[in-house]
Amino acid sequence: MLPTPFTDLFGIPHPIMLAPMGGSAGGALAAAVSRGGGLGMLGAANGDPEWMARELAIVAAGTDRPWGIGFLTWAIDAGAVERALAHRPRAVMLSFGDPGPYVGLVRAAGAVLIIQVTDDEEARRAVDLGADVIVAQGTEAGGHGARRGRSTLPFVPVVVDLAAPVPVLAAGGIADGRGVAAALALGAAGAVIGTRFQATTEALVDAATVKAIVDARGADTERNSVLDIARGSRWPSAYTARTLGHPYLDRWRGREADIAADERARRDYADDLARGAIPALPRWAGEGVDLITDAPSATELVARLAAQAENALDAVTRVT
Amino acid sequence: MLPTPFTDLFGIPHPIMLAPMGGSAGGALAAAVSRGGGLGMLGAANGDPEWMARELAIVAAGTDRPWGIGFLTWAIDAGAVERALAHRPRAVMLSFGDPGPYVGLVRAAGAVLIIQVTDDEEARRAVDLGADVIVAQGTEAGGHGARRGRSTLPFVPVVVDLAAPVPVLAAGGIADGRGVAAALALGAAGAVIGTRFQATTEALVDAATVKAIVDARGADTERNSVLDIARGSRWPSAYTARTLGHPYLDRWRGREADIAADERARRDYADDLARGAIPALPRWAGEGVDLITDAPSATELVARLAAQAENALDAVTRVT
Repeated sequence: MLPTPFTDLFGIPHPIMLAPMGGSAGGALAAAVSRGGGLGMLGAANGDPEWMARELAIVAAGTDRPWGIGFLTWAIDAGAVERALAHRPRAVMLSFGDPGPYVGLVRAAGAVLIIQVTDDEEARRAVDLGADVIVAQGTEAGGHGARRGRSTLPFVPVVVDLAAPVPVLAAGGIADGRGVAAALALGAAGAVIGTRFQATTEALVDAATVKAIVDARGADTERNSVLDIARGSRWPSAYTARTLGHPYLDRWRGREADIAADERARRDYADDLARGAIPALPRWAGEGVDLITDAPSATELVARLAAQAENALDAVTRVT
Repeated sequence: MLPTPFTDLFGIPHPIMLAPMGGSAGGALAAAVSRGGGLGMLGAANGDPEWMARELAIVAAGTDRPWGIGFLTWAIDAGAVERALAHRPRAVMLSFGDPGPYVGLVRAAGAVLIIQVTDDEEARRAVDLGADVIVAQGTEAGGHGARRGRSTLPFVPVVVDLAAPVPVLAAGGIADGRGVAAALALGAAGAVIGTRFQATTEALVDAATVKAIVDARGADTERNSVLDIARGSRWPSAYTARTLGHPYLDRWRGREADIAADERARRDYADDLARGAIPALPRWAGEGVDLITDAPSATELVARLAAQAENALDAVTRVT
């Protein structure tokens, strides 16, 4: 067991949080992580009411342990947060955008306020807003992050120093227990893990994507906005996404301005999607994807990650 | 004390190696690191005979403990390695380029062969060549690295698995003892530290650069080839460099092809250099620069880093 201020806060055994991956971290995955002793988090993205109603019911039915819900701050309104809070999550996480407007709602409901940050300025703002937990996200992370972000290893200790005594979690590039151990060594109170949990039996991810993640190497991942532009996503240009390879990346890599100006490219993308020539969604994957070689149950995976982290720390010999 | 296969190999107390930073890791700095209980490394770059003769004499006079020397593999010939080996370094490190032609020379002299790698393929090649120690360098590192490189935290465990039982050191983004501790937690046998040692009393770095490093934030660093092109450097385009801000970056950021085609830009750079309008060299700095707030003696710094690493690991509570 590796107790930290984060595990103490939630009364859970392992310093591991599921990244609230938009859409793919549904109720089954969040519940499985919580049952395993981590903190399961629903990925509610823009707070779609239908998705939330369905998945909130699943997580509540799936575990008696603490769980939470995460939103894309730029994509929501107060109604989404209120609908979530009605289901009594133990934590609400706000990522990407100004969390200010929603802090009062989360506080008033007595939920733990988790704010994800990608640079020093956001970290200071999260402290000022009274975050209970701060997630320091590095550019290694799968899916979205700051276009001008920081790498996890040098960024985490900066946020730890800046936020103390507020507990900080490390996110980005962590896909096995050694990464969890490294996060703790850096002074973090735990690790946020995303891509590794996409390759589990409970994730809302199609089988072809799971296979692609298991097969991929870190060098196969890349970050840009090409696929957001191609699919007509509303993600602000300040955020890029790390994904696996894709035909539209091969076609448009390094030419974001060109594809943004090319309306036909978006129609082609829709056509290619309709005839199944490209995957249904970009395949979000972090740089730690090398370390993923199977797709177990998320409940078992949490225990495995925790055991690996303890072993990694035990393997560091100290002579006094 | 944190003994590892790396400290055992050299018979040194601390799992810390000085990055052989071209020109700035001279004899005084290398000797100071070795006296402190780490492994000091001369940064011999292209093996300039005059520089080597001077600095090798300084390191040999400055310490009785093990020290080594590092080269830019693409920039040397066998003569440079032979001249170094005549001074009986305990280790020779080869970075950036094919180490194959020099392996036999290093082996024959009985020196420890250290090979730095930036991707999986280079790591496999280093194993095949019989490297005694492999350095896994992440893109957070100051100075040069692979244009398409990997981040330290997810890359190190990949190389550790691939190279076992060959000891692996982590490089890139490590500037305090928490980073050293994280490297060990990831399974590395030690940490390679560069930028942090630029801000010491023994580094061959001008006072203005030391001040710039102490004052800088990680977000102030960026990686590209603009300054190499502007100054007419022979660095191959496969390697970019992470530096602090610079007037020529503001002028040419994102336009490497343009500045490469613009002969006048190189003349302007030479003129600006001559009249002191720009620093003598680009200010190499890694993303861990946030964590650097003073410029102590490198000998003291090694002890401080080691103590911080032990404290960071001790702060991770384990309950069995």
